[in-house]
Amino acid sequence: MSSNLPDITLKDVDRHESNSASSALAPSGERIVIAHGGGGELTAALVREHFLPRLTNQHLTPLADSAVLPWSESRLVFTTDSYVVTPLEFPGGDIGRLAVCGTVNDLAVMGAQPVALSLGVILEEGLPLEVLDRIVASISSACREAGVSVVTGDTKVIESRRSAVQDFIEPVVAPGMFINTAGIGTLLPGVKLDVSRVTPGDVVLVSGPLAEHGLTILAAREGIEFESNLTSDAAPLNHMIQSLLTLGSDIRFIRDATRGGVAGVLADISELREVSIVLEERDLPITPTARHAAEMFGLDPLTVANEGKIVIVTAPSAAEKALSELRRHPLGERSAIIGRVTAEQPPLVEVHTVSGGARIVQRPYGEELPRIC
Amino acid sequence: MSSNLPDITLKDVDRHESNSASSALAPSGERIVIAHGGGGELTAALVREHFLPRLTNQHLTPLADSAVLPWSESRLVFTTDSYVVTPLEFPGGDIGRLAVCGTVNDLAVMGAQPVALSLGVILEEGLPLEVLDRIVASISSACREAGVSVVTGDTKVIESRRSAVQDFIEPVVAPGMFINTAGIGTLLPGVKLDVSRVTPGDVVLVSGPLAEHGLTILAAREGIEFESNLTSDAAPLNHMIQSLLTLGSDIRFIRDATRGGVAGVLADISELREVSIVLEERDLPITPTARHAAEMFGLDPLTVANEGKIVIVTAPSAAEKALSELRRHPLGERSAIIGRVTAEQPPLVEVHTVSGGARIVQRPYGEELPRIC
Repeated sequence: MSSNLPDITLKDVDRHESNSASSALAPSGERIVIAHGGGGELTAALVREHFLPRLTNQHLTPLADSAVLPWSESRLVFTTDSYVVTPLEFPGGDIGRLAVCGTVNDLAVMGAQPVALSLGVILEEGLPLEVLDRIVASISSACREAGVSVVTGDTKVIESRRSAVQDFIEPVVAPGMFINTAGIGTLLPGVKLDVSRVTPGDVVLVSGPLAEHGLTILAAREGIEFESNLTSDAAPLNHMIQSLLTLGSDIRFIRDATRGGVAGVLADISELREVSIVLEERDLPITPTARHAAEMFGLDPLTVANEGKIVIVTAPSAAEKALSELRRHPLGERSAIIGRVTAEQPPLVEVHTVSGGARIVQRPYGEELPRIC
Repeated sequence: MSSNLPDITLKDVDRHESNSASSALAPSGERIVIAHGGGGELTAALVREHFLPRLTNQHLTPLADSAVLPWSESRLVFTTDSYVVTPLEFPGGDIGRLAVCGTVNDLAVMGAQPVALSLGVILEEGLPLEVLDRIVASISSACREAGVSVVTGDTKVIESRRSAVQDFIEPVVAPGMFINTAGIGTLLPGVKLDVSRVTPGDVVLVSGPLAEHGLTILAAREGIEFESNLTSDAAPLNHMIQSLLTLGSDIRFIRDATRGGVAGVLADISELREVSIVLEERDLPITPTARHAAEMFGLDPLTVANEGKIVIVTAPSAAEKALSELRRHPLGERSAIIGRVTAEQPPLVEVHTVSGGARIVQRPYGEELPRIC
């Protein structure tokens, strides 16, 4: 976000090359590859090189998930997100719940009160209507939790891209659906959330256990079960964020840790503010099951997507108050202070490990977690 | 639209059974079929039976393409549409141009000035980047024509659903992309466009030659060329509509004749107002090429989608003024008065043919024109 009103906010834009793997891994020629959608360096490059040059108009707002527009005497916040997850249904949620929570959270982290959603649904031929019915019911209940309404919608159907031959050879791929939700909200009065306000000395919090959404999706796709339950954390966080914002301007910045995980959010802050961020491994809220699952998939839990977790940066004096406020809310009761912002150069995101060492956290490149948000 | 502010406007909803073929043709079991997306009876049934029961909250607004929300002292109009056309590029346009024009026009026909668009892009693995670049350029130029900006965006990538085997057997299907645009606009002051204002005696106009978009897509898909050019009419109509609205409250109702064509719009009016609509075949602006193409595909041009044409209903005294106003605009220079609203019962849409006969215009069922808008 810039101090002027943005004219455009395309996500994942204008990332610098530090802290990244993009120079090491070249994109595979001139076609779209799965990693273009992973929310990492390759997504950033796609947006930077193929969308922004033609669509940009005045101010870029890297890191902002929504645009803020002047609108009579209030300010309107506008955001969009598409959801392409497979499987459509998974422990703890489904694509409908994701589509509502994701867009509500994109508005909420901007300091906006969500007002209304649009719902664009693309259905693949062959989708069982009972699946559609369950997902629409889930959209409805997520809307109730968040206190928003779907006010405009659209439905399209696409032909199945599978031939009879393919169905015979590999019959397990179920027909899919894609959902886009756009959302509008009103900027809450007096709120000043902006990455430019993040300063060395500030404290970094997260609102609960990490990586559970992404790991749940991967496990569901691979047909793997773990000893204890692994379920998606998809939830609308607007009520919790509104409580948090009563603490005022000591809350510097909030972002939901979706595609790219906590690592992606912190890498953005580090690059944009040219600061380092030091995390304490022992303070990271990660359940034993999630840790075990991440090890199995060879993933750093910090890079895995969440759908009901935010990263919060506060002034040092406000960190404990923010933690109490978050913990008062059912969706934030396992919140934790995980690290701090420092002036160390070069700007890096670093974890102090339990064993006394340190490791650099890399922004994911994009191949690790396709189609999980 | 109802006189109260709507809480929800899902398109193609709450259509009555008269004038329809739905009782004759049962949906094929319990799965999504292509006709569910055709914009005809089956689309209406899908929305009515599977979306509205769970998502509706207060007032339905059948026929409205957008929701109107109170917003400080102005009124905000909010709409969404997804675009799934194949081929992605065709004579006269591409999926990007469609996505901008369609949403701009949905706002404009509500009497709103379009302000900002969101852009949600879903790319299929394998899409050539040069195709993406051309489409983004096209989005950009359509935005300039309409005078709107894309202010927020999102990009996702989906895996190709085709196997190597399928590619070997049927290698011609190109990787695709889907676009969702949501749009917000401000309701122009003093505008009272509402289907409830349509009255027997009113006059029906269209803003130019019909059916060209849908026929262009079908021809492109079938690889057919006609002796003269057939090109999509995709265009942003907001400037023309704003000029038209200077005529005031004698303009009763405007709708863009997209999925379902002019027949769909008129069937909606007929059913909702319980009026008949009589068209004069000799007055319908249809080019010889379009007529020839429609015959070849076995289609009634009135049921074929347009992407740059509106249906306008005016008070009788304002029809000629409206026609002049439309014709002053480059996108409306071949506008025509095509018929009138009558009190005849039962409510039907009827064409007086050149040969002196009459035929009933049926709302399309949905199978005729998949994936063309």
